[in-house]
Amino acid sequence: MTESEKPQRAIFFLSDRTGITAETLGSTLLTQFDESELRQSTLPFVNTADKARSTLAYIEHTGRASGLTPIVFSTTVSDEVRAVLRAGNIVFLDLFDMFLPSLESALDTKSTHRVGQAHGIANQDIYDSRIDAMNFALNHDDGVNEQGYERAEVILVAPSRVGKTPVCIYMAMQYGIYAANYPLTEDEFDSGQLPRALKPHRDKLYGLYIDPKRLHHIRSERRKGSQYAAIPQVSYELRQAEQLYKKHRVPYAETTHKSIEELATLIMQDKNLRRRSF
Amino acid sequence: MTESEKPQRAIFFLSDRTGITAETLGSTLLTQFDESELRQSTLPFVNTADKARSTLAYIEHTGRASGLTPIVFSTTVSDEVRAVLRAGNIVFLDLFDMFLPSLESALDTKSTHRVGQAHGIANQDIYDSRIDAMNFALNHDDGVNEQGYERAEVILVAPSRVGKTPVCIYMAMQYGIYAANYPLTEDEFDSGQLPRALKPHRDKLYGLYIDPKRLHHIRSERRKGSQYAAIPQVSYELRQAEQLYKKHRVPYAETTHKSIEELATLIMQDKNLRRRSF
Repeated sequence: MTESEKPQRAIFFLSDRTGITAETLGSTLLTQFDESELRQSTLPFVNTADKARSTLAYIEHTGRASGLTPIVFSTTVSDEVRAVLRAGNIVFLDLFDMFLPSLESALDTKSTHRVGQAHGIANQDIYDSRIDAMNFALNHDDGVNEQGYERAEVILVAPSRVGKTPVCIYMAMQYGIYAANYPLTEDEFDSGQLPRALKPHRDKLYGLYIDPKRLHHIRSERRKGSQYAAIPQVSYELRQAEQLYKKHRVPYAETTHKSIEELATLIMQDKNLRRRSF
Repeated sequence: MTESEKPQRAIFFLSDRTGITAETLGSTLLTQFDESELRQSTLPFVNTADKARSTLAYIEHTGRASGLTPIVFSTTVSDEVRAVLRAGNIVFLDLFDMFLPSLESALDTKSTHRVGQAHGIANQDIYDSRIDAMNFALNHDDGVNEQGYERAEVILVAPSRVGKTPVCIYMAMQYGIYAANYPLTEDEFDSGQLPRALKPHRDKLYGLYIDPKRLHHIRSERRKGSQYAAIPQVSYELRQAEQLYKKHRVPYAETTHKSIEELATLIMQDKNLRRRSF
Protein backbone atom coordinates (compact mmCIF):
# COMPACT_ATOMS: atom_id res chain seq x y z
CA MET A 1 0.00 0.00 0.00
CA THR A 2 1.42 3.42 -0.89
CA GLU A 3 1.29 6.19 1.68
CA SER A 4 -1.29 8.15 -0.28
CA GLU A 5 -3.78 5.27 -0.15
CA LYS A 6 -6.12 5.32 2.78
CA PRO A 7 -6.71 1.79 4.06
CA GLN A 8 -10.25 0.53 3.55
CA ARG A 9 -12.14 -1.23 6.29
CA ALA A 10 -13.17 -4.78 5.37
CA ILE A 11 -16.89 -5.52 5.54
CA PHE A 12 -18.12 -9.10 5.26
CA PHE A 13 -21.57 -10.50 4.62
CA LEU A 14 -21.44 -13.95 6.16
CA SER A 15 -24.00 -16.72 6.27
CA ASP A 16 -24.48 -20.45 6.65
CA ARG A 17 -26.47 -20.23 3.43
CA THR A 18 -26.34 -17.93 0.38
CA GLY A 19 -25.52 -14.70 2.21
CA ILE A 20 -28.25 -12.86 0.31
CA THR A 21 -30.07 -11.73 3.44
CA ALA A 22 -26.80 -10.66 5.07
CA GLU A 23 -25.91 -8.63 1.95
CA THR A 24 -29.32 -6.98 1.85
CA LEU A 25 -29.26 -6.17 5.54
CA GLY A 26 -25.67 -4.94 5.62
CA SER A 27 -25.77 -2.93 2.43
CA THR A 28 -28.99 -1.21 3.49
CA LEU A 29 -27.34 -0.17 6.76
CA LEU A 30 -24.15 0.93 5.02
CA THR A 31 -26.04 3.35 2.74
CA GLN A 32 -26.07 5.50 5.89
CA PHE A 33 -22.26 5.77 5.89
CA ASP A 34 -19.49 6.73 3.50
CA GLU A 35 -19.03 3.52 1.51
CA SER A 36 -15.89 4.68 -0.29
CA GLU A 37 -13.94 3.81 2.84
CA LEU A 38 -15.29 0.25 2.92
CA ARG A 39 -14.40 -2.92 1.04
CA GLN A 40 -17.31 -5.34 0.89
CA SER A 41 -17.36 -9.05 0.19
CA THR A 42 -19.61 -12.04 0.78
CA LEU A 43 -18.75 -15.30 2.56
CA PRO A 44 -21.53 -17.83 1.90
CA PHE A 45 -22.01 -21.41 3.14
CA VAL A 46 -20.13 -21.02 6.46
CA ASN A 47 -22.13 -23.83 8.04
CA THR A 48 -19.81 -25.73 10.41
CA ALA A 49 -17.69 -24.71 13.39
CA ASP A 50 -14.58 -25.73 11.40
CA LYS A 51 -15.47 -23.50 8.48
CA ALA A 52 -16.28 -20.72 10.96
CA ARG A 53 -12.79 -21.02 12.48
CA SER A 54 -10.94 -20.88 9.16
CA THR A 55 -13.19 -18.07 7.91
CA LEU A 56 -12.60 -16.14 11.10
CA ALA A 57 -8.82 -16.53 10.70
CA TYR A 58 -9.10 -15.03 7.22
CA ILE A 59 -11.30 -12.15 8.41
CA GLU A 60 -8.96 -11.34 11.28
CA HIS A 61 -6.06 -11.38 8.84
CA THR A 62 -7.65 -8.66 6.71
CA GLY A 63 -8.14 -6.65 9.88
CA ARG A 64 -4.47 -6.85 10.82
CA ALA A 65 -3.48 -5.92 7.24
CA SER A 66 -5.57 -2.72 7.21
CA GLY A 67 -5.28 -1.86 10.89
CA LEU A 68 -9.08 -1.51 11.01
CA THR A 69 -11.31 -3.97 12.81
CA PRO A 70 -13.46 -5.80 10.22
CA ILE A 71 -17.24 -5.63 10.47
CA VAL A 72 -19.18 -8.83 9.85
CA PHE A 73 -22.89 -8.75 9.03
CA SER A 74 -24.18 -12.23 9.64
CA THR A 75 -27.38 -14.23 9.27
CA THR A 76 -26.36 -17.50 10.79
CA VAL A 77 -28.83 -19.79 12.49
CA SER A 78 -26.28 -22.18 14.03
CA ASP A 79 -25.47 -21.29 17.65
CA GLU A 80 -22.13 -23.06 17.31
CA VAL A 81 -21.02 -21.01 14.28
CA ARG A 82 -22.18 -17.79 15.92
CA ALA A 83 -20.25 -18.63 19.10
CA VAL A 84 -17.00 -19.05 17.14
CA LEU A 85 -17.45 -15.75 15.35
CA ARG A 86 -18.61 -13.83 18.41
CA ALA A 87 -15.28 -14.64 20.10
CA GLY A 88 -13.24 -13.20 17.21
CA ASN A 89 -11.43 -9.90 17.07
CA ILE A 90 -14.13 -8.47 14.82
CA VAL A 91 -17.33 -6.44 15.06
CA PHE A 92 -19.92 -9.19 14.76
CA LEU A 93 -23.45 -8.02 13.94
CA ASP A 94 -25.81 -10.94 13.61
CA LEU A 95 -29.45 -10.66 12.59
CA PHE A 96 -30.60 -13.48 14.85
CA ASP A 97 -28.57 -12.24 17.84
CA MET A 98 -30.21 -8.83 17.46
CA PHE A 99 -33.82 -9.73 16.78
CA LEU A 100 -34.59 -13.20 18.13
CA PRO A 101 -34.95 -12.17 21.78
CA SER A 102 -37.56 -9.46 20.96
CA LEU A 103 -39.30 -11.76 18.53
CA GLU A 104 -39.43 -14.74 20.89
CA SER A 105 -40.91 -12.53 23.54
CA ALA A 106 -43.46 -10.95 21.13
CA LEU A 107 -44.56 -14.35 19.82
CA ASP A 108 -44.27 -15.91 23.28
CA THR A 109 -42.48 -18.96 21.89
CA LYS A 110 -38.96 -20.24 21.31
CA SER A 111 -37.41 -20.19 17.84
CA THR A 112 -36.83 -23.51 16.09
CA HIS A 113 -33.17 -22.95 15.07
CA ARG A 114 -33.87 -24.58 11.74
CA VAL A 115 -31.12 -23.82 9.24
CA GLY A 116 -31.60 -22.81 5.71
CA GLN A 117 -35.13 -21.79 4.98
CA ALA A 118 -34.51 -18.36 3.46
CA HIS A 119 -33.59 -18.29 -0.25
CA GLY A 120 -33.72 -22.06 -0.48
CA ILE A 121 -36.51 -24.33 -1.64
CA ALA A 122 -38.55 -24.20 1.56
CA ASN A 123 -41.73 -25.18 -0.25
CA GLN A 124 -41.43 -26.99 -3.59
CA ASP A 125 -44.88 -25.91 -4.84
CA ILE A 126 -44.26 -22.23 -4.18
CA TYR A 127 -40.78 -22.54 -5.67
CA ASP A 128 -42.14 -24.26 -8.80
CA SER A 129 -44.80 -21.60 -9.28
CA ARG A 130 -42.09 -18.94 -9.11
CA ILE A 131 -40.14 -20.70 -11.87
CA ASP A 132 -43.37 -21.11 -13.79
CA ALA A 133 -44.03 -17.37 -13.46
CA MET A 134 -40.54 -16.67 -14.80
CA ASN A 135 -41.12 -18.91 -17.79
CA PHE A 136 -44.43 -17.14 -18.33
CA ALA A 137 -42.71 -13.73 -18.34
CA LEU A 138 -40.08 -14.98 -20.81
CA ASN A 139 -42.70 -16.56 -23.06
CA HIS A 140 -44.97 -13.51 -23.01
CA ASP A 141 -42.34 -10.88 -23.58
CA ASP A 142 -42.79 -8.12 -26.15
CA GLY A 143 -46.20 -9.15 -27.39
CA VAL A 144 -45.32 -12.67 -28.42
CA ASN A 145 -47.70 -15.48 -27.54
CA GLU A 146 -50.93 -13.57 -27.10
CA GLN A 147 -52.91 -16.66 -26.11
CA GLY A 148 -51.71 -16.73 -22.53
CA TYR A 149 -53.14 -13.44 -21.37
CA GLU A 150 -55.94 -15.07 -19.36
CA ARG A 151 -53.25 -16.31 -16.97
CA ALA A 152 -51.51 -12.92 -16.74
CA GLU A 153 -52.04 -10.91 -13.59
CA VAL A 154 -50.64 -7.77 -15.16
CA ILE A 155 -49.70 -6.75 -18.71
CA LEU A 156 -47.22 -3.91 -19.05
CA VAL A 157 -47.58 -1.65 -22.09
CA ALA A 158 -45.19 0.99 -23.41
CA PRO A 159 -43.22 1.92 -26.53
CA SER A 160 -40.12 -0.13 -27.31
CA ARG A 161 -37.21 0.02 -24.80
CA VAL A 162 -39.03 1.87 -22.02
CA GLY A 163 -38.18 -1.01 -19.67
CA LYS A 164 -41.08 -3.46 -19.69
CA THR A 165 -39.06 -6.68 -19.77
CA PRO A 166 -36.83 -6.29 -16.70
CA VAL A 167 -39.80 -5.27 -14.54
CA CYS A 168 -41.87 -8.26 -15.70
CA ILE A 169 -39.04 -10.67 -15.01
CA TYR A 170 -38.35 -9.14 -11.63
CA MET A 171 -41.99 -9.44 -10.53
CA ALA A 172 -42.01 -13.07 -11.65
CA MET A 173 -38.71 -14.03 -10.06
CA GLN A 174 -39.15 -12.20 -6.80
CA TYR A 175 -42.88 -12.50 -6.21
CA GLY A 176 -44.17 -15.24 -8.51
CA ILE A 177 -46.39 -12.74 -10.36
CA TYR A 178 -47.57 -13.71 -13.87
CA ALA A 179 -46.57 -10.64 -15.89
CA ALA A 180 -46.72 -10.21 -19.67
CA ASN A 181 -45.78 -7.18 -21.72
CA TYR A 182 -46.82 -5.68 -25.03
CA PRO A 183 -45.07 -3.00 -27.11
CA LEU A 184 -47.12 0.00 -28.27
CA THR A 185 -46.48 0.90 -31.91
CA GLU A 186 -47.72 3.09 -34.75
CA ASP A 187 -50.72 0.76 -35.09
CA GLU A 188 -52.10 1.90 -31.75
CA PHE A 189 -51.02 5.51 -32.15
CA ASP A 190 -52.76 5.84 -35.53
CA SER A 191 -55.99 4.24 -34.41
CA GLY A 192 -56.06 5.58 -30.86
CA GLN A 193 -57.26 2.11 -29.90
CA LEU A 194 -55.78 -0.48 -27.60
CA PRO A 195 -54.27 -3.51 -29.39
CA ARG A 196 -56.99 -6.04 -30.15
CA ALA A 197 -55.29 -8.78 -28.13
CA LEU A 198 -55.34 -6.57 -25.05
CA LYS A 199 -58.94 -5.34 -25.18
CA PRO A 200 -60.39 -8.27 -23.22
CA HIS A 201 -57.76 -7.67 -20.52
CA ARG A 202 -58.02 -3.91 -20.07
CA ASP A 203 -58.14 -4.18 -16.29
CA LYS A 204 -54.74 -5.91 -16.30
CA LEU A 205 -52.94 -3.18 -18.22
CA TYR A 206 -50.30 -0.95 -16.72
CA GLY A 207 -48.42 1.68 -18.76
CA LEU A 208 -44.84 2.86 -18.48
CA TYR A 209 -43.57 6.33 -19.38
CA ILE A 210 -40.01 7.66 -19.50
CA ASP A 211 -38.30 10.98 -20.17
CA PRO A 212 -37.80 11.34 -23.98
CA LYS A 213 -34.10 12.22 -23.58
CA ARG A 214 -33.52 9.06 -21.60
CA LEU A 215 -35.35 6.92 -24.18
CA HIS A 216 -33.31 8.60 -26.92
CA HIS A 217 -30.16 7.63 -25.02
CA ILE A 218 -31.29 4.01 -24.49
CA ARG A 219 -32.36 3.52 -28.11
CA SER A 220 -29.14 5.13 -29.37
CA GLU A 221 -27.14 2.45 -27.59
CA ARG A 222 -28.93 -0.09 -29.73
CA ARG A 223 -29.15 1.84 -33.04
CA LYS A 224 -27.07 4.99 -33.01
CA GLY A 225 -28.22 7.79 -35.32
CA SER A 226 -31.34 5.90 -36.39
CA GLN A 227 -34.79 7.35 -36.93
CA TYR A 228 -35.91 4.90 -34.21
CA ALA A 229 -33.69 6.67 -31.67
CA ALA A 230 -34.25 10.26 -32.86
CA ILE A 231 -35.65 12.74 -30.33
CA PRO A 232 -38.71 13.71 -32.46
CA GLN A 233 -39.60 10.03 -32.90
CA VAL A 234 -39.28 9.06 -29.20
CA SER A 235 -41.13 12.23 -28.15
CA TYR A 236 -43.94 11.42 -30.55
CA GLU A 237 -44.24 7.83 -29.36
CA LEU A 238 -44.22 8.79 -25.69
CA ARG A 239 -46.79 11.55 -26.20
CA GLN A 240 -49.05 9.14 -28.08
CA ALA A 241 -48.61 6.42 -25.47
CA GLU A 242 -49.51 8.82 -22.67
CA GLN A 243 -52.64 9.92 -24.55
CA LEU A 244 -53.59 6.29 -24.99
CA TYR A 245 -53.15 5.60 -21.25
CA LYS A 246 -55.32 8.58 -20.39
CA LYS A 247 -58.00 7.87 -22.98
CA HIS A 248 -58.42 4.25 -21.91
CA ARG A 249 -57.81 4.94 -18.22
CA VAL A 250 -54.76 2.71 -18.05
CA PRO A 251 -52.79 3.51 -14.88
CA TYR A 252 -49.16 4.32 -15.62
CA ALA A 253 -45.87 5.17 -13.98
CA GLU A 254 -42.97 7.50 -14.77
CA THR A 255 -39.90 5.26 -14.83
CA THR A 256 -37.03 7.69 -15.49
CA HIS A 257 -35.61 7.79 -11.98
CA LYS A 258 -37.04 4.55 -10.68
CA SER A 259 -35.28 1.22 -10.31
CA ILE A 260 -36.77 -2.12 -11.34
CA GLU A 261 -37.48 -2.83 -7.67
CA GLU A 262 -39.28 0.47 -7.14
CA LEU A 263 -41.39 0.01 -10.26
CA ALA A 264 -42.32 -3.55 -9.34
CA THR A 265 -43.37 -2.43 -5.86
CA LEU A 266 -45.38 0.48 -7.24
CA ILE A 267 -47.18 -1.63 -9.85
CA MET A 268 -48.01 -4.35 -7.35
CA GLN A 269 -49.39 -1.74 -4.97
CA ASP A 270 -51.41 0.07 -7.68
CA LYS A 271 -52.82 -3.15 -9.17
CA ASN A 272 -53.32 -4.74 -5.76
CA LEU A 273 -51.30 -7.82 -6.70
CA ARG A 274 -50.55 -10.36 -3.98
CA ARG A 275 -47.14 -11.96 -3.97
CA ARG A 276 -47.02 -15.76 -3.88
CA SER A 277 -44.44 -15.99 -1.14
CA PHE A 278 -42.22 -13.98 1.14
CA MET B 1 -64.46 -15.53 12.09
CA THR B 2 -65.91 -18.92 13.01
CA GLU B 3 -64.96 -20.48 16.32
CA SER B 4 -62.89 -23.19 14.69
CA GLU B 5 -60.59 -20.66 13.02
CA LYS B 6 -57.58 -19.70 15.02
CA PRO B 7 -56.85 -16.00 14.59
CA GLN B 8 -53.63 -15.24 12.73
CA ARG B 9 -51.20 -12.63 13.96
CA ALA B 10 -50.62 -9.82 11.45
CA ILE B 11 -47.03 -9.28 10.38
CA PHE B 12 -46.11 -6.18 8.38
CA PHE B 13 -43.00 -5.35 6.39
CA LEU B 14 -42.94 -1.58 6.38
CA SER B 15 -40.57 0.87 4.72
CA ASP B 16 -40.21 4.41 3.44
CA ARG B 17 -39.08 2.82 0.18
CA THR B 18 -39.86 -0.50 -1.55
CA GLY B 19 -40.01 -2.67 1.56
CA ILE B 20 -37.76 -5.28 -0.05
CA THR B 21 -35.15 -5.13 2.71
CA ALA B 22 -37.84 -5.29 5.40
CA GLU B 23 -39.38 -8.34 3.68
CA THR B 24 -36.01 -10.08 3.41
CA LEU B 25 -35.12 -9.34 7.00
CA GLY B 26 -38.49 -10.25 8.46
CA SER B 27 -39.08 -13.37 6.43
CA THR B 28 -35.61 -14.69 7.27
CA LEU B 29 -36.34 -14.24 10.97
CA LEU B 30 -39.79 -15.77 10.67
CA THR B 31 -38.40 -18.99 9.18
CA GLN B 32 -37.48 -19.69 12.81
CA PHE B 33 -41.14 -19.74 13.87
CA ASP B 34 -44.38 -21.42 12.84
CA GLU B 35 -45.49 -19.27 9.93
CA SER B 36 -48.90 -20.88 9.59
CA GLU B 37 -50.06 -18.72 12.50
CA LEU B 38 -48.94 -15.52 10.80
CA ARG B 39 -50.45 -13.33 8.08
CA GLN B 40 -47.80 -11.34 6.25
CA SER B 41 -48.10 -8.22 4.13
CA THR B 42 -45.95 -5.39 2.88
CA LEU B 43 -46.50 -1.65 3.34
CA PRO B 44 -44.12 0.26 1.04
CA PHE B 45 -43.54 4.01 0.60
CA VAL B 46 -44.50 5.09 4.14
CA ASN B 47 -42.33 8.18 3.90
CA THR B 48 -44.09 10.99 5.82
CA ALA B 49 -45.33 11.35 9.38
CA ASP B 50 -48.89 11.65 8.01
CA LYS B 51 -48.64 8.39 6.10
CA ALA B 52 -47.08 6.81 9.19
CA ARG B 53 -50.08 7.87 11.29
CA SER B 54 -52.70 6.51 8.88
CA THR B 55 -50.69 3.34 8.35
CA LEU B 56 -50.36 2.87 12.09
CA ALA B 57 -54.13 3.29 12.51
CA TYR B 58 -54.65 0.49 9.98
CA ILE B 59 -52.07 -1.78 11.64
CA GLU B 60 -53.58 -1.24 15.09
CA HIS B 61 -57.00 -2.01 13.65
CA THR B 62 -55.83 -5.44 12.44
CA GLY B 63 -54.44 -6.03 15.94
CA ARG B 64 -57.77 -5.28 17.60
CA ALA B 65 -59.58 -7.51 15.08
CA SER B 66 -57.42 -10.55 15.81
CA GLY B 67 -56.72 -9.84 19.47
CA LEU B 68 -53.00 -10.33 18.76
CA THR B 69 -50.51 -7.47 18.79
CA PRO B 70 -49.19 -6.97 15.23
CA ILE B 71 -45.46 -7.23 14.58
CA VAL B 72 -43.92 -4.64 12.25
CA PHE B 73 -40.52 -5.25 10.63
CA SER B 74 -39.33 -1.89 9.46
CA THR B 75 -36.42 -0.38 7.53
CA THR B 76 -37.20 3.28 7.82
CA VAL B 77 -34.51 5.92 7.76
CA SER B 78 -36.73 8.86 8.81
CA ASP B 79 -36.56 9.53 12.56
CA GLU B 80 -39.97 11.18 12.36
CA VAL B 81 -41.68 8.16 10.80
CA ARG B 82 -39.97 5.83 13.25
CA ALA B 83 -41.09 7.97 16.19
CA VAL B 84 -44.74 7.74 15.12
CA LEU B 85 -44.57 3.96 14.76
CA ARG B 86 -42.59 3.38 17.94
CA ALA B 87 -45.41 4.99 19.92
CA GLY B 88 -48.05 2.63 18.48
CA ASN B 89 -49.66 -0.36 20.12
CA ILE B 90 -47.53 -2.72 18.05
CA VAL B 91 -44.27 -4.65 18.27
CA PHE B 92 -41.98 -2.38 16.26
CA LEU B 93 -38.71 -3.98 15.12
CA ASP B 94 -36.68 -1.57 13.05
CA LEU B 95 -33.39 -2.42 11.36
CA PHE B 96 -31.86 1.00 11.95
CA ASP B 97 -33.02 1.18 15.57
CA MET B 98 -31.36 -2.17 16.19
CA PHE B 99 -28.08 -1.83 14.33
CA LEU B 100 -27.18 1.84 13.94
CA PRO B 101 -25.84 2.36 17.48
CA SER B 102 -23.38 -0.59 17.19
CA LEU B 103 -22.44 0.42 13.69
CA GLU B 104 -21.88 4.09 14.52
CA SER B 105 -19.67 3.06 17.38
CA ALA B 106 -17.72 0.53 15.26
CA LEU B 107 -17.17 3.04 12.46
CA ASP B 108 -16.67 5.86 14.96
CA THR B 109 -18.92 8.20 12.97
CA LYS B 110 -22.54 9.32 12.82
CA SER B 111 -24.90 7.97 10.16
CA THR B 112 -26.08 10.33 7.43
CA HIS B 113 -29.84 9.61 7.67
CA ARG B 114 -30.08 9.71 3.90
CA VAL B 115 -33.34 8.17 2.69
CA GLY B 116 -33.72 5.80 -0.14
CA GLN B 117 -30.42 4.38 -1.27
CA ALA B 118 -31.21 0.67 -1.08
CA HIS B 119 -33.04 -0.81 -4.07
CA GLY B 120 -33.19 2.54 -5.84
CA ILE B 121 -30.90 3.98 -8.49
CA ALA B 122 -28.11 5.04 -6.14
CA ASN B 123 -25.55 5.04 -8.95
CA GLN B 124 -26.79 5.35 -12.54
CA ASP B 125 -23.72 3.67 -14.07
CA ILE B 126 -23.94 0.62 -11.84
CA TYR B 127 -27.69 0.48 -12.41
CA ASP B 128 -27.27 0.71 -16.20
CA SER B 129 -24.67 -2.05 -16.23
CA ARG B 130 -27.09 -4.26 -14.30
CA ILE B 131 -29.78 -3.68 -16.94
CA ASP B 132 -27.16 -4.27 -19.63
CA ALA B 133 -26.23 -7.58 -17.99
CA MET B 134 -29.90 -8.57 -18.00
CA ASN B 135 -30.23 -7.77 -21.68
CA PHE B 136 -27.08 -9.80 -22.27
CA ALA B 137 -28.55 -12.80 -20.46
CA LEU B 138 -31.79 -12.53 -22.45
CA ASN B 139 -29.91 -12.14 -25.75
CA HIS B 140 -27.54 -15.04 -25.05
CA ASP B 141 -30.08 -17.52 -23.81
CA ASP B 142 -30.17 -21.10 -25.06
CA GLY B 143 -27.23 -20.85 -27.43
CA VAL B 144 -28.52 -18.00 -29.55
CA ASN B 145 -26.16 -15.22 -30.53
CA GLU B 146 -22.83 -16.97 -30.16
CA GLN B 147 -20.82 -13.85 -31.06
CA GLY B 148 -21.09 -12.25 -27.66
CA TYR B 149 -19.22 -14.89 -25.65
CA GLU B 150 -16.12 -12.74 -25.23
CA ARG B 151 -18.15 -10.49 -22.96
CA ALA B 152 -19.60 -13.40 -20.96
CA GLU B 153 -18.18 -13.99 -17.50
CA VAL B 154 -19.78 -17.41 -17.25
CA ILE B 155 -21.52 -19.72 -19.73
CA LEU B 156 -23.84 -22.33 -18.24
CA VAL B 157 -24.13 -25.63 -20.09
CA ALA B 158 -26.64 -28.46 -19.56
CA PRO B 159 -29.28 -30.44 -21.42
CA SER B 160 -32.59 -28.72 -22.14
CA ARG B 161 -34.75 -27.69 -19.14
CA VAL B 162 -32.20 -28.34 -16.42
CA GLY B 163 -32.57 -24.71 -15.31
CA LYS B 164 -29.90 -22.64 -17.05
CA THR B 165 -32.05 -19.63 -17.93
CA PRO B 166 -33.41 -18.60 -14.51
CA VAL B 167 -29.95 -18.83 -12.95
CA CYS B 168 -28.40 -16.68 -15.70
CA ILE B 169 -31.09 -14.05 -15.36
CA TYR B 170 -30.82 -14.04 -11.59
CA MET B 171 -27.04 -13.52 -11.67
CA ALA B 172 -27.50 -10.66 -14.13
CA MET B 173 -30.33 -8.96 -12.30
CA GLN B 174 -28.99 -9.33 -8.80
CA TYR B 175 -25.27 -9.03 -9.34
CA GLY B 176 -24.73 -7.52 -12.82
CA ILE B 177 -22.93 -10.68 -13.99
CA TYR B 178 -22.74 -11.30 -17.76
CA ALA B 179 -24.04 -14.85 -18.03
CA ALA B 180 -24.83 -16.79 -21.20
CA ASN B 181 -26.08 -20.34 -21.55
CA TYR B 182 -25.85 -23.10 -24.11
CA PRO B 183 -27.91 -26.30 -24.40
CA LEU B 184 -26.06 -29.62 -24.72
CA THR B 185 -27.57 -31.88 -27.37
CA GLU B 186 -26.97 -35.09 -29.29
CA ASP B 187 -24.27 -33.30 -31.31
CA GLU B 188 -22.03 -33.04 -28.27
CA PHE B 189 -22.99 -36.44 -26.87
CA ASP B 190 -22.16 -38.22 -30.14
CA SER B 191 -18.81 -36.50 -30.62
CA GLY B 192 -17.78 -36.26 -26.99
CA GLN B 193 -16.57 -32.77 -27.86
CA LEU B 194 -17.58 -29.39 -26.52
CA PRO B 195 -19.63 -27.28 -28.94
CA ARG B 196 -17.33 -25.44 -31.32
CA ALA B 197 -18.61 -22.01 -30.25
CA LEU B 198 -17.65 -22.77 -26.65
CA LYS B 199 -14.15 -24.15 -27.16
CA PRO B 200 -12.40 -20.75 -26.99
CA HIS B 201 -14.23 -20.08 -23.72
CA ARG B 202 -13.66 -23.33 -21.85
CA ASP B 203 -12.61 -21.54 -18.67
CA LYS B 204 -15.99 -19.77 -18.54
CA LEU B 205 -18.07 -22.97 -18.66
CA TYR B 206 -20.12 -24.26 -15.76
CA GLY B 207 -22.32 -27.35 -16.01
CA LEU B 208 -25.64 -28.14 -14.40
CA TYR B 209 -26.91 -31.58 -13.45
CA ILE B 210 -30.30 -32.65 -12.10
CA ASP B 211 -31.93 -35.85 -10.91
CA PRO B 212 -33.37 -37.69 -13.97
CA LYS B 213 -36.79 -38.14 -12.33
CA ARG B 214 -37.01 -34.41 -11.73
CA LEU B 215 -36.04 -33.62 -15.32
CA HIS B 216 -38.61 -36.14 -16.53
CA HIS B 217 -41.22 -34.31 -14.46
CA ILE B 218 -40.18 -30.86 -15.75
CA ARG B 219 -40.10 -31.94 -19.38
CA SER B 220 -43.43 -33.75 -19.03
CA GLU B 221 -45.06 -30.46 -18.05
CA ARG B 222 -44.02 -29.14 -21.43
CA ARG B 223 -44.54 -32.25 -23.59
CA LYS B 224 -46.39 -34.99 -21.77
CA GLY B 225 -45.71 -38.53 -22.93
CA SER B 226 -43.06 -37.45 -25.44
CA GLN B 227 -39.78 -39.17 -26.19
CA TYR B 228 -38.15 -35.90 -25.08
CA ALA B 229 -39.54 -36.34 -21.57
CA ALA B 230 -39.11 -40.13 -21.28
CA ILE B 231 -36.98 -41.45 -18.44
CA PRO B 232 -34.53 -43.37 -20.67
CA GLN B 233 -33.97 -40.25 -22.77
CA VAL B 234 -33.39 -37.84 -19.87
CA SER B 235 -31.17 -40.41 -18.11
CA TYR B 236 -29.10 -40.80 -21.27
CA GLU B 237 -28.70 -37.05 -21.75
CA LEU B 238 -27.74 -36.43 -18.14
CA ARG B 239 -25.24 -39.31 -18.12
CA GLN B 240 -23.66 -38.00 -21.31
CA ALA B 241 -23.59 -34.45 -20.02
CA GLU B 242 -21.87 -35.54 -16.82
CA GLN B 243 -19.27 -37.46 -18.80
CA LEU B 244 -18.64 -34.40 -20.91
CA TYR B 245 -18.17 -32.22 -17.81
CA LYS B 246 -15.68 -34.71 -16.38
CA LYS B 247 -13.80 -35.27 -19.62
CA HIS B 248 -13.32 -31.56 -20.26
CA ARG B 249 -12.93 -30.66 -16.59
CA VAL B 250 -15.96 -28.37 -16.58
CA PRO B 251 -17.02 -27.71 -12.97
CA TYR B 252 -20.66 -28.55 -12.37
CA ALA B 253 -23.38 -28.47 -9.75
CA GLU B 254 -26.24 -30.75 -8.78
CA THR B 255 -29.36 -28.58 -8.96
CA THR B 256 -32.17 -30.88 -7.82
CA HIS B 257 -32.64 -29.47 -4.33
CA LYS B 258 -31.10 -26.05 -4.87
CA SER B 259 -32.90 -22.78 -5.46
CA ILE B 260 -31.89 -20.24 -8.12
CA GLU B 261 -30.31 -18.14 -5.36
CA GLU B 262 -28.27 -21.04 -4.00
CA LEU B 263 -27.04 -22.01 -7.47
CA ALA B 264 -26.10 -18.43 -8.32
CA THR B 265 -24.16 -18.10 -5.07
CA LEU B 266 -22.40 -21.43 -5.62
CA ILE B 267 -21.43 -20.66 -9.22
CA MET B 268 -20.13 -17.21 -8.35
CA GLN B 269 -18.07 -18.71 -5.54
CA ASP B 270 -16.70 -21.57 -7.70
CA LYS B 271 -15.89 -19.30 -10.66
CA ASN B 272 -14.63 -16.51 -8.44
CA LEU B 273 -16.99 -13.96 -10.00
CA ARG B 274 -17.17 -10.50 -8.43
CA ARG B 275 -20.54 -8.84 -8.22
CA ARG B 276 -20.84 -5.33 -9.65
CA SER B 277 -22.66 -3.88 -6.67
CA PHE B 278 -24.13 -4.67 -3.28
